[in-house]
Amino acid sequence: MEGVHPLFNEIKSLNEECGVFGVFGAPDASQLTYLGLHNLQHRGQEGAGIVSSDGEHLYQHRDRGLLSDAFADPNDLKKLVGDSAIGHVRYSTTGRNSIQNVQPFLFHFLDGDVALAHNGNLVNAVSLRNKLEKQGAIFQSSSDTEILIHLIRNHIKDGFISALKQSLNEVHGGFAFLLLQKDRMIAALDPNGIRPLCIGELDNGAYVVSSETCSLDIIGAKFVRDVQPGELIIIDRDGMKIDHFTKNTHLAICSMEYIYFARPDSIIHGVTVHNARKRMGRLLAREAPADVDMVIGVPNSSLSAASGYAEELGLPYEMGLVKNQYVARTFIQPTQALREKSVKLKLSAVRGVVAGKKIAVIDDSIVRGTTSKQIVKMLKDAGAKEVHLRIASPPFRFPCFYGIDISTRSELLAAHYSVEEMRKIIGADSLGFLSIDSLIKAIDVPDRGDSSGLTVAYFNGKYPTKLDDYEAGYLASLNAQERRQRKELSNESL
Amino acid sequence: MEGVHPLFNEIKSLNEECGVFGVFGAPDASQLTYLGLHNLQHRGQEGAGIVSSDGEHLYQHRDRGLLSDAFADPNDLKKLVGDSAIGHVRYSTTGRNSIQNVQPFLFHFLDGDVALAHNGNLVNAVSLRNKLEKQGAIFQSSSDTEILIHLIRNHIKDGFISALKQSLNEVHGGFAFLLLQKDRMIAALDPNGIRPLCIGELDNGAYVVSSETCSLDIIGAKFVRDVQPGELIIIDRDGMKIDHFTKNTHLAICSMEYIYFARPDSIIHGVTVHNARKRMGRLLAREAPADVDMVIGVPNSSLSAASGYAEELGLPYEMGLVKNQYVARTFIQPTQALREKSVKLKLSAVRGVVAGKKIAVIDDSIVRGTTSKQIVKMLKDAGAKEVHLRIASPPFRFPCFYGIDISTRSELLAAHYSVEEMRKIIGADSLGFLSIDSLIKAIDVPDRGDSSGLTVAYFNGKYPTKLDDYEAGYLASLNAQERRQRKELSNESL
Amino acid sequence: MEGVHPLFNEIKSLNEECGVFGVFGAPDASQLTYLGLHNLQHRGQEGAGIVSSDGEHLYQHRDRGLLSDAFADPNDLKKLVGDSAIGHVRYSTTGRNSIQNVQPFLFHFLDGDVALAHNGNLVNAVSLRNKLEKQGAIFQSSSDTEILIHLIRNHIKDGFISALKQSLNEVHGGFAFLLLQKDRMIAALDPNGIRPLCIGELDNGAYVVSSETCSLDIIGAKFVRDVQPGELIIIDRDGMKIDHFTKNTHLAICSMEYIYFARPDSIIHGVTVHNARKRMGRLLAREAPADVDMVIGVPNSSLSAASGYAEELGLPYEMGLVKNQYVARTFIQPTQALREKSVKLKLSAVRGVVAGKKIAVIDDSIVRGTTSKQIVKMLKDAGAKEVHLRIASPPFRFPCFYGIDISTRSELLAAHYSVEEMRKIIGADSLGFLSIDSLIKAIDVPDRGDSSGLTVAYFNGKYPTKLDDYEAGYLASLNAQERRQRKELSNESL
Amino acid sequence: MEGVHPLFNEIKSLNEECGVFGVFGAPDASQLTYLGLHNLQHRGQEGAGIVSSDGEHLYQHRDRGLLSDAFADPNDLKKLVGDSAIGHVRYSTTGRNSIQNVQPFLFHFLDGDVALAHNGNLVNAVSLRNKLEKQGAIFQSSSDTEILIHLIRNHIKDGFISALKQSLNEVHGGFAFLLLQKDRMIAALDPNGIRPLCIGELDNGAYVVSSETCSLDIIGAKFVRDVQPGELIIIDRDGMKIDHFTKNTHLAICSMEYIYFARPDSIIHGVTVHNARKRMGRLLAREAPADVDMVIGVPNSSLSAASGYAEELGLPYEMGLVKNQYVARTFIQPTQALREKSVKLKLSAVRGVVAGKKIAVIDDSIVRGTTSKQIVKMLKDAGAKEVHLRIASPPFRFPCFYGIDISTRSELLAAHYSVEEMRKIIGADSLGFLSIDSLIKAIDVPDRGDSSGLTVAYFNGKYPTKLDDYEAGYLASLNAQERRQRKELSNESL
Repeated sequence: MEGVHPLFNEIKSLNEECGVFGVFGAPDASQLTYLGLHNLQHRGQEGAGIVSSDGEHLYQHRDRGLLSDAFADPNDLKKLVGDSAIGHVRYSTTGRNSIQNVQPFLFHFLDGDVALAHNGNLVNAVSLRNKLEKQGAIFQSSSDTEILIHLIRNHIKDGFISALKQSLNEVHGGFAFLLLQKDRMIAALDPNGIRPLCIGELDNGAYVVSSETCSLDIIGAKFVRDVQPGELIIIDRDGMKIDHFTKNTHLAICSMEYIYFARPDSIIHGVTVHNARKRMGRLLAREAPADVDMVIGVPNSSLSAASGYAEELGLPYEMGLVKNQYVARTFIQPTQALREKSVKLKLSAVRGVVAGKKIAVIDDSIVRGTTSKQIVKMLKDAGAKEVHLRIASPPFRFPCFYGIDISTRSELLAAHYSVEEMRKIIGADSLGFLSIDSLIKAIDVPDRGDSSGLTVAYFNGKYPTKLDDYEAGYLASLNAQERRQRKELSNESL
Repeated sequence: MEGVHPLFNEIKSLNEECGVFGVFGAPDASQLTYLGLHNLQHRGQEGAGIVSSDGEHLYQHRDRGLLSDAFADPNDLKKLVGDSAIGHVRYSTTGRNSIQNVQPFLFHFLDGDVALAHNGNLVNAVSLRNKLEKQGAIFQSSSDTEILIHLIRNHIKDGFISALKQSLNEVHGGFAFLLLQKDRMIAALDPNGIRPLCIGELDNGAYVVSSETCSLDIIGAKFVRDVQPGELIIIDRDGMKIDHFTKNTHLAICSMEYIYFARPDSIIHGVTVHNARKRMGRLLAREAPADVDMVIGVPNSSLSAASGYAEELGLPYEMGLVKNQYVARTFIQPTQALREKSVKLKLSAVRGVVAGKKIAVIDDSIVRGTTSKQIVKMLKDAGAKEVHLRIASPPFRFPCFYGIDISTRSELLAAHYSVEEMRKIIGADSLGFLSIDSLIKAIDVPDRGDSSGLTVAYFNGKYPTKLDDYEAGYLASLNAQERRQRKELSNESL
Repeated sequence: MEGVHPLFNEIKSLNEECGVFGVFGAPDASQLTYLGLHNLQHRGQEGAGIVSSDGEHLYQHRDRGLLSDAFADPNDLKKLVGDSAIGHVRYSTTGRNSIQNVQPFLFHFLDGDVALAHNGNLVNAVSLRNKLEKQGAIFQSSSDTEILIHLIRNHIKDGFISALKQSLNEVHGGFAFLLLQKDRMIAALDPNGIRPLCIGELDNGAYVVSSETCSLDIIGAKFVRDVQPGELIIIDRDGMKIDHFTKNTHLAICSMEYIYFARPDSIIHGVTVHNARKRMGRLLAREAPADVDMVIGVPNSSLSAASGYAEELGLPYEMGLVKNQYVARTFIQPTQALREKSVKLKLSAVRGVVAGKKIAVIDDSIVRGTTSKQIVKMLKDAGAKEVHLRIASPPFRFPCFYGIDISTRSELLAAHYSVEEMRKIIGADSLGFLSIDSLIKAIDVPDRGDSSGLTVAYFNGKYPTKLDDYEAGYLASLNAQERRQRKELSNESL
Repeated sequence: MEGVHPLFNEIKSLNEECGVFGVFGAPDASQLTYLGLHNLQHRGQEGAGIVSSDGEHLYQHRDRGLLSDAFADPNDLKKLVGDSAIGHVRYSTTGRNSIQNVQPFLFHFLDGDVALAHNGNLVNAVSLRNKLEKQGAIFQSSSDTEILIHLIRNHIKDGFISALKQSLNEVHGGFAFLLLQKDRMIAALDPNGIRPLCIGELDNGAYVVSSETCSLDIIGAKFVRDVQPGELIIIDRDGMKIDHFTKNTHLAICSMEYIYFARPDSIIHGVTVHNARKRMGRLLAREAPADVDMVIGVPNSSLSAASGYAEELGLPYEMGLVKNQYVARTFIQPTQALREKSVKLKLSAVRGVVAGKKIAVIDDSIVRGTTSKQIVKMLKDAGAKEVHLRIASPPFRFPCFYGIDISTRSELLAAHYSVEEMRKIIGADSLGFLSIDSLIKAIDVPDRGDSSGLTVAYFNGKYPTKLDDYEAGYLASLNAQERRQRKELSNESL
């Protein structure tokens, strides 16, 4: 029913938009996709859907909520017959959490149906939609994903693949698209490869595409390769064909995938996420050591960095915070007040560990600072003598326009305050961050040439693409010095 | 949830597609619309929805099932704030009973949202959709209603009202459209006025538009006038303006509205439906009298005609059949076998009334004949000595293309058999129908000039419009003589 | 879920408590029971349940709401395996509409499970429960039905049948009990036979027990006999055995079953309900004729009486009121204010029939008078010149303690006002009632000896049983004269 | 609805039966109870309920599933008004997962309502129920909890508290009861204190009772004391009174609470669970060291022990296994086959960490061995060179009769195989367990006198109570030597 859903209140304000998964040519394709999405659930909890194909027709089921809510009835999966399927888990950035926005989208045409799933964000979505609407286009969702299908239909006279390639050159930003037709699955990655996307293979030779490698493991698929920037992967009965829609590419994968989003067991461009995080912890220890009795991490995403930090300093690594494994429904609006209180629904301090101790607590990032403030308070309430906060990434000062739910600067603590000001607001005894250079060194993307291979724009404001629709608003949010730098940057390369 | 819904099995195979209702400028507009739809529930039981406007934004709630199912949660209505609203109850003809097809549709545009509800059927929907898709249009539903909005957007540069008028001239068939914008409600009726549509007024001066007058009564609105063929009614803060999109009009309201669909208390073009039915019964008594002990009607739609029949012949009018007031869920596919059995879920013979008696049973129409057969058997099982079936309308021989769920001839008993053959199949002791002339005389549409003012195509094959997409299939379904007649007709007027 | 259910607001304040149905020894017993309950739905709309037996185990499903809501999932019925089943539809009198109170109840014992369903009301339930609780008994529902099983367990050492007989002699009031054990179905009727209960037989020899004969018809069972007062019907693999738990019996079936509750096609003690109602109408016409243009009935329960009234006076019988066949949810408390308004959700006046006419409107009874008042107003608003209200039963002055939802006098209009005062309150041009004698004559229970065979206590205060727990409160509600009569009566016979 | 619920498949076969929480005298008592239960969710995921009191009436809401499912509607909590409440989370051991078994139970009596919640298991439940049924008692659930209320009612003439004390002496086993009356909350703990139960206090002086201290923290209550064996805690408007129902007590708290069940941040009898686990890991390292490259733990319950193991040996502590934080619905029966496969739904190996390495993996216990086998396979599939399994508790050889879902020996791997046989079955390169002495030393219950203060019967078969109903079956499951020991033991002390 399209009624009111209780709000899940998240203590973390960094939210990834989505995860995609698809399989072509395997029996029980929709069940495999369900399992694949289960291991991508961390990438989106507000909606889930699967479209399958039996070679003739496409079948769709989607609903709001977690995968287990969206597919609450065993029949939901059973009706998705066929040996190919694509699926999607979604985090909604806009507040418009209606079922119309849950992917994969399924479009019916007289010349054949198309299903579409997307991870990322387009920076020229508004201008494209504006143009398309003026030409008579009617959109059924408020998602920018839908723009691609309108563009394709505009070029459809040239054939589907050609139309798709033209369309992929018209959209800007960070995107990993997955499409399903009755007899074909297609994947495409933006020219900077901002979002992760990989290919796997099942024992029977069926190909799998997924946002992260952890989804290959759960279905027993072996890793084949990462999708490269600008590539178009076409999988049909004849096998896999690697095509491209542009050669003007430059790898700049989102550093936040390594810092926070991706699962620790995923391997992105050859780098195991847990290992990268542990190295961030080690380098952080060198740059910002702390004189403490023990090191603790904020579960779960900061545990890897915390253990690296402890090892580097030869300090005990302890369990000072416990995470409740169960989701709490809080029947309230996600206001700032609630966010503060709700930390307790997720985290508890272990009094018997921290009481009377000097503690270094490692977190992966600071966004608004409210969680950090609550964690420090919680530890002190539990008897900690000193709490030294260490962040295993640089200060988060600039918004993300490629799929993280932070598109204005107003909410970013580090955009407005110095480190010492932040420390005071948070109430920690000391505060330290990882440097950008160390972050790049910790991740160490292979074969990246003379660039970092990463998008670190959140920390230094250097975006790998033009900002299009966001440019004006972004400029207005900058201070004088930042604006000057931005203009210089624009004159140079963008 | 978009899961599987239990099938409601209907014993009657005549199904109206929809009912529309709207109110502009009254507090609690969505509640009034809910009440209005409650009295239109007989026009559609498979989906219901309301879109409201508070002058700034449009709010939508819709779901499958009866009104009471679709609005099961008190909050469903509460969130539809504002002083204007349009609503819709739906019967799905196609089997695609997905929530995407439940109206009113709500379309978002950068230049303002539009909600759209429709009662009727377009005969050129497929060709229009074909043409639009070739131009790049993407449809979100399988409903032909959506075509109108695509046409409007194609002409939008001329302004909304002009674009709407142009579009209304491009669609053919029977249609009553109701549109809501943030500050305006618009109603439009096809050039033949095939579907009923009326205007009412509340005490506070707010205007109401509804498929039937029985919805005006429940909210205390007084009847203003019927919408006339080709009219465009525009209601905004300045009041009501009666415009038209064509002057090439010719009233031919669907006779089935009087025979079966409309509520007996509704008044359509000045004729109270109950009174028309009672006159059908009286004229039927003259044309096909029966030598019986008593007259009974098939509840509820045939009770008016039955009482007229009894009065005309001076026979007792008895309650020989009882209708179960509660809907039975039957968890089975609507196959022919089930249809036969399911009559018992709706009707029971009153043994104490009919046992040992010669009976005339009056029904409004025969479609497949399965219900009639079961009723005759049920009465005989209950002890009736003779069962004489009288139908208060002519033999239903030709399909409807304007919104009744009978678009092929294959299911129509009267299309394939003579009256005597039908009598044998049904098992009645005698069988009689009303003539077309008597039907026209019984309804007696006022101010109709030298025509009947009615569509009686179901009985004589003379459709008031071209059949467009249906023409070829229809021709193929005719026998030699009928085909000849059709061609002559086409040469003449269409 | 035990959450909040929307309130269904009933315009009629007379509510029967329940209907029971059972079948022993037929394949698909639970499906037959579902169909049987479907035709008993008018006896209770707030809960429904079925318990089946496969000879080894008992299986239960029950839930609140209509049958179609309580069995919304096809699996609900499928899991009720076995060839025997009993079912129940419930109207809750107490406002405690929790699932614990939905019947049949299922009790687990080490010596075998027992299911129990009940139609009626016990007058000594509170004192029995009091006594049982003092002995340590723990009740799981607030229903008085549960008392029987506690009594049985108190006597269980004598064997089940003996314990049951003893228990049936300890409960007082009106009751029709239906019990299911793994290998036996048992029915019992109170010594006055206040509630109807009948036996049917299927083609395969399986026996059926039901509150009304209309449920035999829907499953194709033929009527065998009515259960007589004081009888205990035991049905097992060896067939049916007619036993009794008391011989001190005196038939006094509730006259309200004929007036209002039962379906018109049911036959109770040989009398077809529709025919009895029609005779009530005829006798009412003789006792209280009206000088009018036409006669109309309040649908559906008063249509039979109205047609009798019209025939007797030779007046046209018209459809002046139409009933909406669909249930309206009104999300509000069932206050007096809402009751008045809600008549419009159920009934509409047919303006085209009643405008300018003098009308006799026939209703079956007046409880609070609010419905009557609204109907008169509705007809006058629709243009009726005069509205003469005729009630096809005597003034309802005394409460019912045997299962109708009227157990205090405070709500009964006729308990407090003369006929002329009632007319003024209601706003009718005249008001007339049927006499008690004519009511008895119209029903004409066969083989009733020198008594009426009926309970007409609602009209004259003469109850067929002692009132036990209700006596004190009842006495307090009487005026001086009534109290004197009550005491004389008590001295005599009770 | 009492329909079919999808099965949640747990990879861990050790399941605690319940958690209880209550608060007396605080505004929003039901909301505090909801928060308290949220932090007890790990103790039961199959049902949740709360009963509140406003000093006059008791209000109940309960349903199956997680707390967030059982209280899915914001109104569920809102209707639980009053300043006192008790709540319960439930794991069902019997498979009878019907709503009737979800606690707190609410019993209605003419002398006042009583709500009852229970954590534990009674060993004489069947014989007591047998006896009670013979006396006429009728049970509404299949839970042994209900027995207490029947016993109380048997003694009620002596007053409630006296009746409760007598009843608590009649039930045997492990139990923590929480009762709520309109003006009183009562807690009781069995004579061995087998289940944990503690008291806290809010700032406003309101008392709180909870299974674990982690629930005090979330609502900001400070710890007061543990409930001691045999105590009866009575909390009313006058404050808290510590009474007892027996003085024949002997502390023997379930060692599994420390090993596996309780949250690491909880403090039971002065011992922080995380610290106890870490010491288990350290002692395990001394008793069963491994020559490996790194140590990993099975998340989440074995992480504490793993870090202790690593520290003791000076080995790197790594994240080699990742737990999916989201619950997977698997629409299948919990068969052995599924259990094996379903490990992958919960755990993933981190290939980038374990590939090519010799690994010690620490788990808290082995029940069936299927999870261990899968974990070893998973690690080897991910490239681990050697996998050495270390269990931070002794071999689990004897069933639990006090509330853990292991009441037969047939499923216990260690009951049937030697350590070397188990190693082969599991496929590990080596296998080691903690000794019972080290377990006792690691937990180190304070003020325990000359006993361990623990129940370690799962490891040595020495139960702190008689086994009553289970004795015969238990004896039959033992081998000759074990049976001899059991008999000696019985002669001695029980």
